This record gives sequence, structure tokens and C-alpha cells, in this order.
Amino acid sequence: MKAYGKKVWLIPDTYLNSISKNANISHEAICVINTSDVDAEIKLTLFFEDRDVRTDFSSFCKAMRTHHIRMDKLRNEAGEPIPRDVPYAVLVESNTPIVCQYSRLDTSAPEMALMTTMAYPVEE
Amino acid sequence: MKAYGKKVWLIPDTYLNSISKNANISHEAICVINTSDVDAEIKLTLFFEDRDVRTDFSSFCKAMRTHHIRMDKLRNEAGEPIPRDVPYAVLVESNTPIVCQYSRLDTSAPEMALMTTMAYPVEE
Amino acid sequence: MKAYGKKVWLIPDTYLNSISKNANISHEAICVINTSDVDAEIKLTLFFEDRDVRTDFSSFCKAMRTHHIRMDKLRNEAGEPIPRDVPYAVLVESNTPIVCQYSRLDTSAPEMALMTTMAYPVEE
Amino acid sequence: MKAYGKKVWLIPDTYLNSISKNANISHEAICVINTSDVDAEIKLTLFFEDRDVRTDFSSFCKAMRTHHIRMDKLRNEAGEPIPRDVPYAVLVESNTPIVCQYSRLDTSAPEMALMTTMAYPVEE
Repeated sequence: MKAYGKKVWLIPDTYLNSISKNANISHEAICVINTSDVDAEIKLTLFFEDRDVRTDFSSFCKAMRTHHIRMDKLRNEAGEPIPRDVPYAVLVESNTPIVCQYSRLDTSAPEMALMTTMAYPVEE
Repeated sequence: MKAYGKKVWLIPDTYLNSISKNANISHEAICVINTSDVDAEIKLTLFFEDRDVRTDFSSFCKAMRTHHIRMDKLRNEAGEPIPRDVPYAVLVESNTPIVCQYSRLDTSAPEMALMTTMAYPVEE
Repeated sequence: MKAYGKKVWLIPDTYLNSISKNANISHEAICVINTSDVDAEIKLTLFFEDRDVRTDFSSFCKAMRTHHIRMDKLRNEAGEPIPRDVPYAVLVESNTPIVCQYSRLDTSAPEMALMTTMAYPVEE
Repeated sequence: MKAYGKKVWLIPDTYLNSISKNANISHEAICVINTSDVDAEIKLTLFFEDRDVRTDFSSFCKAMRTHHIRMDKLRNEAGEPIPRDVPYAVLVESNTPIVCQYSRLDTSAPEMALMTTMAYPVEE
């Protein structure tokens, strides 16, 4: 199949809320679709407001698959999670074209709130 | 009227929640507008995280009409619905230009949560 | 100031819910910004699933102003509102470039749900 | 790192709700990521429905950082906040390329509602 999308995407508003008052825990997902015939290796660079970028997180999306990357479950090689309750932003870089959508579910109030947007694609 | 939009669109984050605790049932819609003079035949290819793509779902949008395609009501030729509670993604392909927006209503908590985004358009 | 944006925008997913259980009534807004020096005359063409398009609604956005067009308050020349509880879609056409965002607030459950997306801009 | 994004962005639907019935106060954020090696000076021009534009608000995003600009906390040089309960729109102008996403959290009903969208980028 044709490889749709771009190799570089940005998401300025990411935030992992540590509070969940509902069976559905508060989380974020970077959702990826890969229509190419090549497995996508995905580099995630995290930007913060008051400290240096972190380059120790990564993920993947197999060829002809989707991957809803749960940011709350992601771990780096040292087994560390992404910091909670801190505003951050993400630069997504893939070796093959992908399409990238960001969604957040927040249950810090007992009821659920949802938001989503397509990430910002970089033209090559 | 001029045929606005594109023939190929992608939605990385789709998910049919099987739980509804409100009169409004949890559902997704792929909303399409067709400003062309040709009826749109719409092929929906479903991508999953851990199994092969499915090409057995399709829909339509008549000329000069909208169609809010309810993914929870969609059936393939064998009368089967889209699987529930499974992350998936959708490639939308039309024979004529359309514009495509994705919306989700979730009532798995008793109150309602909504999210929407324009789908990702492929430049021709 | 430079006239930013486009003259033609599309919104596939519009819907006016007639139920409100909160002081904030359920409504939609097509929000427009006009950075040009010309008042924007805005033609709104409504597309439906099962009936002909309607061209009897319009609005405006003055030069160097915003207008959050409340679709629930809009009336045609005969004083009629947009039909409630019916899926529709909107083609937005302006005489001068504008930027167009669509937002929905739903209080059909007592708590509030919100969704928003930039409308789809047509390249000229 | 490569400077991703654009220097000019628009957000037609901004609104600061003065009511909060939850520990999380109702607020808006214009979230920015700056992948360039230059600190971003960000000019925010506010557009209203019935009065002249205001050019007395600004913000920043350091090189290789994100800034989730809280519009409810922003003050001009006279120490004044952005007016509450008034529809407005924002033109964002930066000296270096940035990517810009707009998010709103509303707790005017006790439960939380969220919405987000990428801002509209101006091609140069």
C-alpha cells in the first residue's frame, strides 16, 4: 500500500494527569497509523518548560498496523515513566511515513473528559 | 458545485466503547460532506494493533449531501459489526472528493464526553 | 493588516441538540476571525443527509473583528432557525479571507461536554 | 535542531469562563513548542466582536522548550488580565518558527470538559 503521511509530527500540548477518580484512568495516547510496508521506528523527543529535552523514550508501529501509544504506560530503557503533572510537548520522528493523532482522557473529576487533535505534520 | 476536499483521508484514533450509561449510547461517527455532483462510494479499511487489516466495511455519501457514518451501526456484507473495545484506525477512500471529520461521544461514565478532529487529508 | 486565511471552509459534523439540562444551553458556534480591512459577508450553505441543501442562512464578521456565530441563534430572512436534532454539514463562503473554527457545547447530560476543531480550508 | 512550524498562527475561538466549580479552574492555554535555537518572542493580538483589537499582551517560549501559555494568568504591562466571559480570537506572531495548539478546560459545571485543536498556521 502507498505510504501515507509524514515522517515528522509535533504535539505542543501534552500532560499526564496523575489523578484518576474513575475506572478509566487518566491518560494520553499518541495514535499512529502506518500504511507503509516498513515497520515504523518512532523516536519521541520530550520538550519541557524549564529543563532540557529528553531523548530516552521511543515506540514503534508495525507495517500495515495502528499503534495507540499510551504515554502513561511508556517506559525508557531504565524503566522510568514520563513525569506526571508537568506540561510537556512531543516531537515525533519516524523512519517511514505515518499519520499521528493525539488524544487525552481525563478522569481527575469523576466523570470523563476527552479531547483530540491531529498532530502538526512537517512538510518535507 | 465545485468538488471540495480530497479522495483519501486517515484517522489514527478510532475506538468503539461497548459501555453506555446514558440515553445517548457511546459511539463514533466519520462525518462526510460531498459537494460534488457524483455520489461518493466510500471504502473503509480498518487497521488494528495485532491483526491484519480488514477491507469488508464500506459506506457512501450522496452528491450534495452529508453522511454522518455511525461506526457502531455499520455492518459488513455478513452483517457483522466493527469489533468493540479494540483500538483501531481507519483509511477512508472515496471515488470523488469529500471532506472528512471524526467525532466520538463516550458515555461509559454516566455523563457525556465529546471529542472531534478533522481527519488527515492526503494531497494528490 | 494582512488578510490571513481562506475564503472557503467546510465543516462535515454539525448538529444542534435540542436538549439542555444546564444553565449553559447546548449550542454550536462557527467562530471566525477577520484580519482583513474588509467586512466579511459569510454565506452558509447547509447540507443534509436526506434533503436538498439550504442556502437561506448567512452571517458576517466585521473587519479586524471576530464573530462567534451561534448556530442556535441564527435565523433566516423568514425568521426560521436551523433544524434541531438533525445531522447536517456546513459550507462557509466569505468575500474576504477568514479563519474558521467549529465548536460544540452539549449539556443534554447535566454536565457539559465540549469539542472543537479547525474547519477544513480550501486552497485557492 | 531544525526550526519546525510557522511564525504566524490564528485561533478564532477563545473564551475565558469566569466560573469554576472544581479544584481545576476553568482556563485556556495556547501551547507552544519551539524546536529552534532562538528564544521565541510571541506577540498576541486579541480580536473582539464589538471593540478594537488589543496589542498589549505578549509571551515567550525559550529555545528547545515548550510553553503552555495560561491565558487566565497572563497580564499586560499594566497588570491587567484578559477580559472574562467575552468571546475573542487570537493572532499569534513569533520571531522564530513555532507550533501552536489551543486547549480549553471548563469546570463551570462541576465536572470537567476539555477541547483542543491545532491552531491555524499561515504559510509563508
